[in-house]
Amino acid sequence: MKALVYQGPHDVRVMDMPDPKIERPTDVLVKITTTNICGSDLHMYEGRTNMEPGLILGHENLGKVVEVGNAVDRIKVGDFVCLPFNIGCGFCKNCERGLTGFCLTTNPGNAGAAYGFAGMGPYSGGQAEYLRVPYADFNCLKLPPDAQEKENDYVMLSDIFPTGYHATELAGVRPGESVVIYGAGPVGLMAAYSAAIKGAGMIMVVDTHKDRLALAEKAGAIAIDDSDGSCVDQILELTKGQGADRGCECVGYQCCDQHRHEVPNLTMNNLVKTVRATGGIGVVGVFIAEDLGAKDKLAKQGRLAFDFGQFWMKGQHIATGQANVKAYNRPLRDLIAAGKANPSFIVSHELPLDKAPEAYKNFDARNDGWTKVVLKPGV
Amino acid sequence: MKALVYQGPHDVRVMDMPDPKIERPTDVLVKITTTNICGSDLHMYEGRTNMEPGLILGHENLGKVVEVGNAVDRIKVGDFVCLPFNIGCGFCKNCERGLTGFCLTTNPGNAGAAYGFAGMGPYSGGQAEYLRVPYADFNCLKLPPDAQEKENDYVMLSDIFPTGYHATELAGVRPGESVVIYGAGPVGLMAAYSAAIKGAGMIMVVDTHKDRLALAEKAGAIAIDDSDGSCVDQILELTKGQGADRGCECVGYQCCDQHRHEVPNLTMNNLVKTVRATGGIGVVGVFIAEDLGAKDKLAKQGRLAFDFGQFWMKGQHIATGQANVKAYNRPLRDLIAAGKANPSFIVSHELPLDKAPEAYKNFDARNDGWTKVVLKPGV
Amino acid sequence: MKALVYQGPHDVRVMDMPDPKIERPTDVLVKITTTNICGSDLHMYEGRTNMEPGLILGHENLGKVVEVGNAVDRIKVGDFVCLPFNIGCGFCKNCERGLTGFCLTTNPGNAGAAYGFAGMGPYSGGQAEYLRVPYADFNCLKLPPDAQEKENDYVMLSDIFPTGYHATELAGVRPGESVVIYGAGPVGLMAAYSAAIKGAGMIMVVDTHKDRLALAEKAGAIAIDDSDGSCVDQILELTKGQGADRGCECVGYQCCDQHRHEVPNLTMNNLVKTVRATGGIGVVGVFIAEDLGAKDKLAKQGRLAFDFGQFWMKGQHIATGQANVKAYNRPLRDLIAAGKANPSFIVSHELPLDKAPEAYKNFDARNDGWTKVVLKPGV
Amino acid sequence: MKALVYQGPHDVRVMDMPDPKIERPTDVLVKITTTNICGSDLHMYEGRTNMEPGLILGHENLGKVVEVGNAVDRIKVGDFVCLPFNIGCGFCKNCERGLTGFCLTTNPGNAGAAYGFAGMGPYSGGQAEYLRVPYADFNCLKLPPDAQEKENDYVMLSDIFPTGYHATELAGVRPGESVVIYGAGPVGLMAAYSAAIKGAGMIMVVDTHKDRLALAEKAGAIAIDDSDGSCVDQILELTKGQGADRGCECVGYQCCDQHRHEVPNLTMNNLVKTVRATGGIGVVGVFIAEDLGAKDKLAKQGRLAFDFGQFWMKGQHIATGQANVKAYNRPLRDLIAAGKANPSFIVSHELPLDKAPEAYKNFDARNDGWTKVVLKPGV
Repeated sequence: MKALVYQGPHDVRVMDMPDPKIERPTDVLVKITTTNICGSDLHMYEGRTNMEPGLILGHENLGKVVEVGNAVDRIKVGDFVCLPFNIGCGFCKNCERGLTGFCLTTNPGNAGAAYGFAGMGPYSGGQAEYLRVPYADFNCLKLPPDAQEKENDYVMLSDIFPTGYHATELAGVRPGESVVIYGAGPVGLMAAYSAAIKGAGMIMVVDTHKDRLALAEKAGAIAIDDSDGSCVDQILELTKGQGADRGCECVGYQCCDQHRHEVPNLTMNNLVKTVRATGGIGVVGVFIAEDLGAKDKLAKQGRLAFDFGQFWMKGQHIATGQANVKAYNRPLRDLIAAGKANPSFIVSHELPLDKAPEAYKNFDARNDGWTKVVLKPGV
Repeated sequence: MKALVYQGPHDVRVMDMPDPKIERPTDVLVKITTTNICGSDLHMYEGRTNMEPGLILGHENLGKVVEVGNAVDRIKVGDFVCLPFNIGCGFCKNCERGLTGFCLTTNPGNAGAAYGFAGMGPYSGGQAEYLRVPYADFNCLKLPPDAQEKENDYVMLSDIFPTGYHATELAGVRPGESVVIYGAGPVGLMAAYSAAIKGAGMIMVVDTHKDRLALAEKAGAIAIDDSDGSCVDQILELTKGQGADRGCECVGYQCCDQHRHEVPNLTMNNLVKTVRATGGIGVVGVFIAEDLGAKDKLAKQGRLAFDFGQFWMKGQHIATGQANVKAYNRPLRDLIAAGKANPSFIVSHELPLDKAPEAYKNFDARNDGWTKVVLKPGV
Repeated sequence: MKALVYQGPHDVRVMDMPDPKIERPTDVLVKITTTNICGSDLHMYEGRTNMEPGLILGHENLGKVVEVGNAVDRIKVGDFVCLPFNIGCGFCKNCERGLTGFCLTTNPGNAGAAYGFAGMGPYSGGQAEYLRVPYADFNCLKLPPDAQEKENDYVMLSDIFPTGYHATELAGVRPGESVVIYGAGPVGLMAAYSAAIKGAGMIMVVDTHKDRLALAEKAGAIAIDDSDGSCVDQILELTKGQGADRGCECVGYQCCDQHRHEVPNLTMNNLVKTVRATGGIGVVGVFIAEDLGAKDKLAKQGRLAFDFGQFWMKGQHIATGQANVKAYNRPLRDLIAAGKANPSFIVSHELPLDKAPEAYKNFDARNDGWTKVVLKPGV
Repeated sequence: MKALVYQGPHDVRVMDMPDPKIERPTDVLVKITTTNICGSDLHMYEGRTNMEPGLILGHENLGKVVEVGNAVDRIKVGDFVCLPFNIGCGFCKNCERGLTGFCLTTNPGNAGAAYGFAGMGPYSGGQAEYLRVPYADFNCLKLPPDAQEKENDYVMLSDIFPTGYHATELAGVRPGESVVIYGAGPVGLMAAYSAAIKGAGMIMVVDTHKDRLALAEKAGAIAIDDSDGSCVDQILELTKGQGADRGCECVGYQCCDQHRHEVPNLTMNNLVKTVRATGGIGVVGVFIAEDLGAKDKLAKQGRLAFDFGQFWMKGQHIATGQANVKAYNRPLRDLIAAGKANPSFIVSHELPLDKAPEAYKNFDARNDGWTKVVLKPGV
């Protein structure tokens, strides 16, 4: 089959690779029809992880089941399914409580597995024609009859829609509340969209890219242009000096100031400043335990110079981590099916798999208008 | 009246001071019968705050009502009451949701007021013969008929018992879970005691003082002696390498390593290491937004070099802040009344008010056996 | 002043009554500018309660503060305020946890007080020119500068908007879920509107009145016309035989079948049938402990022949009771201020106070088009 | 193998039956070493269900794994495991949220499956030498090294310990609160024991059997002897007229008054009377949708004449249903392993399987001292 293979920093290629096979009786094979490039793929693309060359990337996958193992009960050949990027077993201490992003079985010695991701276990990605899905009864989300018609909406259930939603859950957003979201990339936009679905009273999205801020407004948010570094003042003014009830971090450890210099503690310390006393902060932007490519000494060790004193005085709380996709993908699927959510509004490019290397290049450069790329391996 | 007055760093004296008066129709006056010295009084005693000389200290107060304002309905002259250290109005956005530690009315421009505390509003403390209590119907906890007999138990409801309990709430301790508590001072001991009340499966308390660790064992905990800096290894071994389900920080910004050097990020980074993936961390030890007396450059700015990367990878959550005493003092009072809780087990010294200066000196030096001092102004 | 006075069953009159006065230092006086007739006023109007003649009705009130007691701090003369129908003290065991609908102080011997309501304490109603508001700092909701412009929206914060919202909270409605609401009266419509605000995936509203069902559709719901008694089948079909995730009862003890005969257990047993296993049911329709006017023997005793066996087998849960208005009125106010909620869409009639008797007659008869009456005493 | 087979009302026999086999790759076979008789077995024993003759009873099972299907990953031959009485699939809408008592897969067309139980699917019971366990990775609770030594404690994790605990969760019991429990049978005793573990301030247990009330006192409760029908008065007096904060129903539809006449609505209406306004009620006693053997007309239809009016006026809430055992069995196991819980204190008889018929007879008659029977098939 054809697949997008990581060769090294800034080098990905579409190549012939062996077809995946049913390896265990609980597996299924899926013919991928839509698969996205995710912002977190860029961490690997840029060589900022220990990703090994030769592996297939891609953790935002949707397709049609073509083969099932003999212990699979619920999933049938022909089903259209969307795959959560995290791979759970369904029976460990974490999975059984819904914390499927921290499965203790599928990536032994760690908590959490994913397709085609550095440090997340030995699983090939889905930027390819076929994908093997472990523990398929547990991991596959079945799609309704309009699956093919709304493929670009449903594929967002694999990661960024639940991840954006997770940010609002971690922050504790409730109807009528105000929320500030740092980052208008795909995840930040999905956080804003989720806050709107939940009935937030005021949604502010901070970024420096005008094309992305325009999309934030489309999602129902107030755009906070931080090109001049004034976001804290802008937010405090909009919230009468109190700060927002809730805040979301949707940027991660490579966050930059207005001069595009990496300032790893920028968004977190701004959150402490712009969320009110007793408020909640949800962090879904990726932070890593060791960042050898960083210039900053603390950042190399995975540390931030964090305003802990102010954070404590304000009695705030922070919750973090990758989204437990299965905790949210059913109700969000039902909103799409009911026509009440259309997360595909962020798609900027729909391309055949062959164009993936070019897409990586443009997306990584944050070139204007490259918000979200959807790949179609079958085309 | 006689009262303990702050004169400057390491200088407190018992002096004659004017009696407090009813200032507003919602006030009451209380004749203090028991008042404690709190670990957080030491921050002021040591001159590590902007406390002004001439003020009366003391925020852990219990006594008998001797006069009531004409708008007071519930509280009557003669009632024995315990006063939460934080002063709420009862009607602001925070108080009405139970966040009485972050009242927006009683300390204008800030969130939260307290008796006799730097930065917490213009309220005299209760290490004195009398105390004025604002918004008395809201703030006074009425005590049952056995109030005088169990005065040393009930006085703990003013601060450290609810504060220790708050640590376990912020961390999310549930029956059967394991919890690690950093600090075996009065608050850490009350956190351990609270975890035991809640049915925790394993309670570990970390400290270097053997007398305090012995009390932790009395509270039902496993003592983790960190005199050799091995606490992380000990905890991981006890939890089969996973870390505890929950963790509590009960030390604060002046935490020290085994050599008694201040290492401000020690407890927080150890918590990240010793709490398991997806676990919760509650922080009630005081951290401040600016610590001019600190040697460390980050600490001066109220910052910690925090292991944010590992924290995020593990999907942990942190909740912080002073306890909303009123959220807990009724049910904890009922446990004392039912004979099911006896928090006075930590009292090491019961002294008349005159002996307060000497008690401050010994408690501040963490001299052996000086765990908790209870003052009796009426004696 | 002029006020609407209850004289006996089906007899209310606008009469001259003595002006209210500040009685306690925590009171304020409000000049009422908008006051609604509520469906629960009809229980008294019809003589189905022990309401005594001579009392002023009206518990959905909004107006301008004209006098304040000397212990009032937060509320000032000139403030526009909306008054929750329930009167709390702010300091009892229930109020301090936000359960202001069950205040233990303001209606001694009972839990809960209200203006102008049978059995809810000695408080005059607000269908009048002036109203005395007890514990004003606690009870008054301050309105923003657009108060007068959006008076018909903000007045809904006194009762039916928070009550409808409460139904969805008691039922546990979450984004993407399906919910069935029995009753398309003002409260049912507000429940549907609240479910939409919360991002429910499918909202079904059951009634037999076509004008009200049309409003339900306007609120974003699917209208379930039960004129032929087929609502259970309709709902099961829409939910693929599973029943809705959540259900709301917004009718109460006088619920009728399609022939307009009172069948007190109709809605509750239909809820058990049409909510799925493990689902939640919120009941805000009024049920009373004794209904001497009922024909049914069980109903006289306040009992229902309830399908408890099926309820248990399905593992459902029911939560009940009047709304704790203060738990919701701040965020709902903020949604109105932000232009994201316009609950006045249900207003069918805006009338001067003099027309109140006529309005009662029409509303009680459920005459076509009489959905919600707003009275303007100042006109 | 030998097994206890239901033959008809009041007729159970130990007979030779075919050994179970691995039927699906996700199954395991367990050699049963301990299996209990449950109060709910008596519903079948008495012929009050549609149980078919020829089936093996027994849903409280513990034993050693002797064979595993080829898709089983976590469970190994030789593991000691305790089996939750409810059988979940692990991947349906309910199981994935922890509602394993309402699995939508294992008993098609219904919500929830169990071993050896009327209406709960085609699964043989474990009052036998061997048991087939479906979806074994999901359903088996692994026991620690002291499994055999504490077998009578661990076996309680199959049903009654989690079920009693579930009652307190459904009621919402929190530290310091008061709780009233109706029924001092095994489940009621486990509810009292669970409330004590959670730090309840006052625990009251209502029954008429003195031997069981004595055990309730052993579990830390106040015994309320209802032999004279005065339980409501006793509870109101103990709670100063307010009622308990929380209440648990641990009796079910066959509840009797002090004259041992069935009065199906007795416990539920007493709960409404004796739980305070805004309080929570958890119902784990079994109620059924149709009870053809009942004398009462409403009871035949599975209905109760329930005090719904008073329930609503008090703003109480009720949650119901069988326990989702997997939601609780890990932390409760850890409490047993830590020596902090010893639920076997209720065991009155430990018998070989051959004695099961005699045990059923005595337990059904509620003969003095027959509280809980533990069977040992291997002996």
